[in-house]
Amino acid sequence: MTHDPQLYPADRIVRAQKAAADAGLDALLVSPGPDLRYLTGYEAQPLERLTCLVAPAYSAPFLVVPLLERPAAEVSPAGALELEIIGWQETDDPYALVASRLPSGIRRIGLDNHMWAEKVLAFRDAFPGAEQALAGDALAGLRIRKSEAEVRALNEAATAIDAVHLSMGQWLRAGRTEREVGKDIADAIIGAGHATVDFVIVASGPNGASPHAEVSDRVIQPGDPVVVDIGGTMPSGYCSDSTRNYCVGEPPEEYLRAYGVLLAAQTAQTQSVVPGMTAEQLDAIGRDLIAGEGYGDYFIHRTGHGIGLDTHEEPYIVAGSQRVLEPGMAFSVEPGIYLPGKYGARIEDIVVCTETGGERLNVTSRELRILA
Amino acid sequence: MTHDPQLYPADRIVRAQKAAADAGLDALLVSPGPDLRYLTGYEAQPLERLTCLVAPAYSAPFLVVPLLERPAAEVSPAGALELEIIGWQETDDPYALVASRLPSGIRRIGLDNHMWAEKVLAFRDAFPGAEQALAGDALAGLRIRKSEAEVRALNEAATAIDAVHLSMGQWLRAGRTEREVGKDIADAIIGAGHATVDFVIVASGPNGASPHAEVSDRVIQPGDPVVVDIGGTMPSGYCSDSTRNYCVGEPPEEYLRAYGVLLAAQTAQTQSVVPGMTAEQLDAIGRDLIAGEGYGDYFIHRTGHGIGLDTHEEPYIVAGSQRVLEPGMAFSVEPGIYLPGKYGARIEDIVVCTETGGERLNVTSRELRILA
Repeated sequence: MTHDPQLYPADRIVRAQKAAADAGLDALLVSPGPDLRYLTGYEAQPLERLTCLVAPAYSAPFLVVPLLERPAAEVSPAGALELEIIGWQETDDPYALVASRLPSGIRRIGLDNHMWAEKVLAFRDAFPGAEQALAGDALAGLRIRKSEAEVRALNEAATAIDAVHLSMGQWLRAGRTEREVGKDIADAIIGAGHATVDFVIVASGPNGASPHAEVSDRVIQPGDPVVVDIGGTMPSGYCSDSTRNYCVGEPPEEYLRAYGVLLAAQTAQTQSVVPGMTAEQLDAIGRDLIAGEGYGDYFIHRTGHGIGLDTHEEPYIVAGSQRVLEPGMAFSVEPGIYLPGKYGARIEDIVVCTETGGERLNVTSRELRILA
Repeated sequence: MTHDPQLYPADRIVRAQKAAADAGLDALLVSPGPDLRYLTGYEAQPLERLTCLVAPAYSAPFLVVPLLERPAAEVSPAGALELEIIGWQETDDPYALVASRLPSGIRRIGLDNHMWAEKVLAFRDAFPGAEQALAGDALAGLRIRKSEAEVRALNEAATAIDAVHLSMGQWLRAGRTEREVGKDIADAIIGAGHATVDFVIVASGPNGASPHAEVSDRVIQPGDPVVVDIGGTMPSGYCSDSTRNYCVGEPPEEYLRAYGVLLAAQTAQTQSVVPGMTAEQLDAIGRDLIAGEGYGDYFIHRTGHGIGLDTHEEPYIVAGSQRVLEPGMAFSVEPGIYLPGKYGARIEDIVVCTETGGERLNVTSRELRILA
C-alpha cells in the first residue's frame, strides 16, 4: 500500500508513550492490526509468529519481528521511524526477548485490544509479576479524534461506498438470489477503490429483520424491501460503512409507514450531532422518536459505532454511555426497525462531529429507492 | 456460504468437551474464528460484541450472541446443533452472563487461541478465581488430523491455487510493477473459486530475498527471478497456499545453481514424509541438504506450517519440534534460499501425511518457469 505521512505522522509513538504514562501503564505491547498501523504505518499480517511494537512509557520504543519479516518491516513506513527493529530466529523465544529488552520494574502492561489470547498468555508468563491491562486505555484517546487527514481518508471511503449504492439498480432485481447480488456488489466495492471487502449484507424480505444477516440463496421477490449494508477498507487503511434500503417493485403499506418513522429518526439524529452532547443523548433522540411511534421493541441495537482504521471502534453510540462527543469523532448513525417474519429497514451514514455540529460523509439519498 | 455437514459434522462439540476434560480444562470459551467454525460451522465475524461458544467439560454447551445477531446464528449451521442460543442486549454484560450460566467450581478455562485481549481480560474479571489457559491445548489435537472430507476441501483449494499459477504467464511480464501483477493475481484467485484473497507475494529481483515481501511499485526487469507465493480461503473455509518461481527472460547462472539445490531439497522433503517421523526430522532433511551446498545461512525460516481452516496452524515443521507426523496431518513444505541484495527462491507445496507416506496436493511443476 502507498504510504501517506500526513495520514500516519511520525510523532504518534511518542504521543502513545505519553498517553501510556498518563494511564498508569509502564509499557504498551502492540501486535499487528489497526493499532500498529496507526502508530507506525506498518501493515503487518496477524500471524502466529510474534511481531510487536514495544513502547515503554519512559524509554526508547522498539519493534520485534520474525527474522524472515525483518526486510519487509525495514521497507515499511516503520523503517523510516526512530525505532530499532529487532529480528528473532525461528527457535528463539520472542516473548522472553521482549522482557529482556524492557527496563526492570515493569508492573503494568497495556496489550493492544485485539492481541490474540495465545500471545496474551505468553506475555503473562514472560512478565510473571506484571498486571495486564488494555493498550486501548491509552490509545483509544488518541484514535478517537480524527485529524484532518484522517477525515479526508474517511471521506474518500464514504465516496467510494456511495458510488456502489448509486449503481445498485444494475444488480438488485427480483428473480436473482441475495448471493448473486452480493457477489456483484463485492466486485463493485473493489472496483470503487477499496483494497478489501469487509462485509456485504443483502437482506431481502423477511431476512431484512435480521440485522446482521448473511447473504443467502433466497430469490428476491417482487415487492421485497431489501436492506443493503456494505463496507470495505481503502488502501489508506480507513473504512467505509453505509446502509440504504431498496424495494424491487411496490413496497407494502405497513413497511412504508415504518420506513417514514425510521427516516425521520435517522434524520433527526444526524442533524442533532453537536460537540458536548453525550453518546447516550444521541442514541435517545432516535430511540424515543421510534418508540413514540410504537416501534420501540423493534429497534434492537445501539445507534452506532465509531469508525476509522477499524470498522467498529470508539465511540459507541449506545444507551448508558456518558461519552461526550468532541470535534473529530467519526461514527455511524444507523437506527433500524425490524419486524420479525416480515422485513426490516436500517439507514446508516458516517457522521463526523465538527466544531459546530455534525457532517454526513455519506451523501446518497436516504429515501427508500424503488427499483424496477 | 453453503454448508457441508460432512465437512462440519455435528459431533465436534462433544469431542471438544471430552478433549477439554482430558486437558484439565473445566470449560472452553470460543469466540468467532476458525475454532468456532470448526466446532459449529458458524462463520461469525470477529467484532467487539461478544459471540462465544461455551463448552463446559461436563455439562451442556451453549452459544452466547448479541441479540441483533441471534437470527443470523439461528439460520447458521449452529442453529441445527443441540445448542441453546442465548441473545444478550446492548446494555447487558455478556461476560457476567457467561459466568452466571456456567456450573460453579470452574477453576481452569480454555480460551480460543485467537480470542482478542479485550475479551480475555473481560473473562479474567468475570472469573476472578479461575486460571486462564488456551483452548488450543484441547482443540489442536482434533484439528491437526484432517478427515477425508477436510482433505478433499484442502485438495479443492490446492487445485484452485494451482490454476492461478498455471496462468501466471498472462500477467507476469517485464515492464509491469509487482503491484499491477499482484492485482491481476488477486482477481484470478477469486476467479478460481476462492471466497477471499489471503495474501499475494510477487517479489521480483532483490525483493525476492525478503520472504514476506509486500508487493511494491518496483518495475519487473528482464532477467529478474520472481517469487510468487499466493493463497486464499475457499467457500468451504479451507485455505490454499503455494509458491512457485518464475523468471522473466534468462536467469543469472548463480541463481540457477541455488535453484537446483532448493528444488533437490524440497523434492527430498516431500518424498520423505512418512508417519512416525518428527517435524524436526523433516525440517532437517531440507536444511542439511541446503547447508551441505553452502546455502545454510540463507535458509532463514522453518520448513513449513500446518494448514486447514487457518493458513498457519499446527503442526509447524521446525527445528526443535518433537511432534510426530500422523496420517491426516496437512502442512506446507517450503524451504527457501535468500541472497540479500540479489534475489531469492522458495518452493511450496501442501502435503498430506497418509498411512504410507506423503501426498502433494499442489501438482504444478516445481521447475523454474521461464516467461518470455
